[in-house]
Amino acid sequence: MKLDIKSIHSEHHHYGWSNKNEPKAIIKNEQLIELETIDSSGGQLNNLSTIEDIKNLDFSKVNPVTGPLYIENSEPGDTIEISIEKFETSGWGWTANIPGFGLLSDQFEEPAINIWKYDKSNPVDSLFSNFASIPLKPFVGTIGLAPKEEGVLSVVPPRNFGGNLDIKEVYEGTKLYLPVQVSGGLLSLGDTHAAQGDGEVCGTAIESPMKVLIKTKLHKNKKIDSPFLETNHTPLLKKNIGSFITTGIGEDLYVASKEAVSRMIDYLTKNIKIKDIDAYMLCSVAGNLKISEIVDVPNWVVSFEISKSIFD
Amino acid sequence: MKLDIKSIHSEHHHYGWSNKNEPKAIIKNEQLIELETIDSSGGQLNNLSTIEDIKNLDFSKVNPVTGPLYIENSEPGDTIEISIEKFETSGWGWTANIPGFGLLSDQFEEPAINIWKYDKSNPVDSLFSNFASIPLKPFVGTIGLAPKEEGVLSVVPPRNFGGNLDIKEVYEGTKLYLPVQVSGGLLSLGDTHAAQGDGEVCGTAIESPMKVLIKTKLHKNKKIDSPFLETNHTPLLKKNIGSFITTGIGEDLYVASKEAVSRMIDYLTKNIKIKDIDAYMLCSVAGNLKISEIVDVPNWVVSFEISKSIFD
Repeated sequence: MKLDIKSIHSEHHHYGWSNKNEPKAIIKNEQLIELETIDSSGGQLNNLSTIEDIKNLDFSKVNPVTGPLYIENSEPGDTIEISIEKFETSGWGWTANIPGFGLLSDQFEEPAINIWKYDKSNPVDSLFSNFASIPLKPFVGTIGLAPKEEGVLSVVPPRNFGGNLDIKEVYEGTKLYLPVQVSGGLLSLGDTHAAQGDGEVCGTAIESPMKVLIKTKLHKNKKIDSPFLETNHTPLLKKNIGSFITTGIGEDLYVASKEAVSRMIDYLTKNIKIKDIDAYMLCSVAGNLKISEIVDVPNWVVSFEISKSIFD
Repeated sequence: MKLDIKSIHSEHHHYGWSNKNEPKAIIKNEQLIELETIDSSGGQLNNLSTIEDIKNLDFSKVNPVTGPLYIENSEPGDTIEISIEKFETSGWGWTANIPGFGLLSDQFEEPAINIWKYDKSNPVDSLFSNFASIPLKPFVGTIGLAPKEEGVLSVVPPRNFGGNLDIKEVYEGTKLYLPVQVSGGLLSLGDTHAAQGDGEVCGTAIESPMKVLIKTKLHKNKKIDSPFLETNHTPLLKKNIGSFITTGIGEDLYVASKEAVSRMIDYLTKNIKIKDIDAYMLCSVAGNLKISEIVDVPNWVVSFEISKSIFD
């Protein structure tokens, strides 16, 4: 079976987003591809790292993404659907406080690090010292397409065509939709996390290198304004029901909230075929507004999530 | 049994918050009290109401709260714990788009209303026309203490001593903690909801009058800066595990997010006895930042929630 899967080694990575990055593979519709990621330190940290290693981090090597993949026939105005099929985890990860980064960087000025270990064949939870057990749910932190702008854009802030989204629902079974900006899309991903809460408040999650199996599907002439997700997993429920998630990305959480909710109303109006005012009231009684990340300066991600179960 | 319970009729309500409101009862520590609420229209809407009734709403009668209750021995610098014991629901509710109110008031300028019916003996779900079934979870939208400021403060915005919080976790089994501002605290509640999503984006939830059974407990010389919650319910799980929830309340969602996370770190540092930097990293990998309400102008509520299960 493995023979059918195209595999992209983690040596094929880049820093920042540019439409000049050379494609590492040309991908056909619905072809399985496995991408190997480096952890978000770019391999500078490992399972023996200490605070000294945080002090010596070279920021020019931070957050590499593996790729890009050229998605056959994709053009600006199309949407690429990325199905997250499977993770092969590494059994270790790190979380750090990096001075100057994180929601409370003014309160936490000293570097800190925690190294996590977990069962790579069954990544269910991981102990934090002797006081907490963190549930794991591997996902892709950074996933995006190349911009139409010339030059190299920083990998830190997410944008409406993806990037450092840190939306924790980009996990197994989820379909993520991104709007194509340039011919071939030029899809890359990295920054895999074994676990993260909404907000990623200290600036890092359980940063953990992985192999990610994905499948892409091209939607010709389908235009979206911002990442959209359909999940097939409902946390804590064994039945996989899942939800629809719209996003608002930018420097202002209030504006991003308005955008995320507007986009959900638009989605429900077109797909559930209900009036926009009904969709608005439905969102008020059954949709949830959350802050997926508030650390990837200067752009925050607000998500609006509605369970698919209400339409059953 | 009922004989032991003090009952406050909904005719004992007030509009706005003032330390001059006459107490309707003096409450002893851990005494059960049942408060009857009027719906947030102040009785102007009922289960036959139409759009015409929304057009004719008298805003001076909006969001009445039943009370206040004088909590024996409570003084500024103390904290009142309010345990939400039980709801007796009414079987109906309304959701409306009120022009000029709501996150997308610039996009939805016309009034609209939906009347909901549900099983009052078993309020589990309610149909929205023929396209959705909304899960119900009754809770108290507005619950607060009197301010130390003189005069009458508007009931619309929530404040650090409570009010129109619209935190959907103020449901059965939850303990809500509020900081006392004046002698007796002067606790009132109203604005009961049968269901609401985080954000309450259209400005109204499933607005539904109820009877609410509560019990208060006084914590002398325990000072908190903002509402804190401990729930005993985990959505979708049959086991009741629950979570800790801190809040940030104000006009700026980013500042409110920082406050909510800081308060959780403070709580974990003191109660789980861990270092603040560990609490910060723990919050990043296991805590969730959400927008509980974004419509009660001008103050929004950001909540930071962490499951109690991780400390088991």
